[in-house]
Amino acid sequence: MSSHSEAPAVPVEAYEPPYYMAVFTTLRTQDQSGYSETDARLEDLVKGIPGYLGTDHAQTPGGLGITVSYFRDADALTKWRADVEHRAAQQRGRAEWYQSYTLHVAKVERSSGFTRAQVPQGPTAD
Amino acid sequence: MSSHSEAPAVPVEAYEPPYYMAVFTTLRTQDQSGYSETDARLEDLVKGIPGYLGTDHAQTPGGLGITVSYFRDADALTKWRADVEHRAAQQRGRAEWYQSYTLHVAKVERSSGFTRAQVPQGPTAD
Repeated sequence: MSSHSEAPAVPVEAYEPPYYMAVFTTLRTQDQSGYSETDARLEDLVKGIPGYLGTDHAQTPGGLGITVSYFRDADALTKWRADVEHRAAQQRGRAEWYQSYTLHVAKVERSSGFTRAQVPQGPTAD
Repeated sequence: MSSHSEAPAVPVEAYEPPYYMAVFTTLRTQDQSGYSETDARLEDLVKGIPGYLGTDHAQTPGGLGITVSYFRDADALTKWRADVEHRAAQQRGRAEWYQSYTLHVAKVERSSGFTRAQVPQGPTAD
């Protein structure tokens, strides 16, 4: 899922392990009709799953797309996997939107993060 | 690490679990001087790690970058983590190239893949 907000995307933070993540790597077809509407709908749905932590998405123009979704535990991921609209979207994805994809589901054992310190700004002149 | 080949990127395949992956999500700074040379050098180095399986990379222009590297086992990932040039590059990344990043290291428990069937081509006329 891509981010639909206008704010600049920032990486999802490092949560305290263990937690789960699903890495979905895709190469798209030429025909992307209906994709963005479905993507927005799935983004709303996944936010309703208890234990959903967030999603990172990056898309190289004309190249690989990577979506990483994070979940507190395996149960949360199982609930998302069983969602009826999610399953229908997966089926449509294989029929129309994806040339190829790989899904890797994993338990996070270690995580860390970095955020650059803000450079202090001098007072602005009036 | 990005792919430096001219061939269209395809997703790294689904290996037989368990295997390991490191998900590195980044937001870059304006100053990317020296980044691409270091990236190319690291790509060569990681290929020399026994048990290295491959890397997926996607970069939204002006937005999030995601790099996922796959390893056969935790030992392979530990070797890569300990590489001296890799560690120096990480330090330079924090000093110059990254506004923020998150690293998630995980054990893959389940994986699957899909590749669209080729549409048969009729014989071309001479």
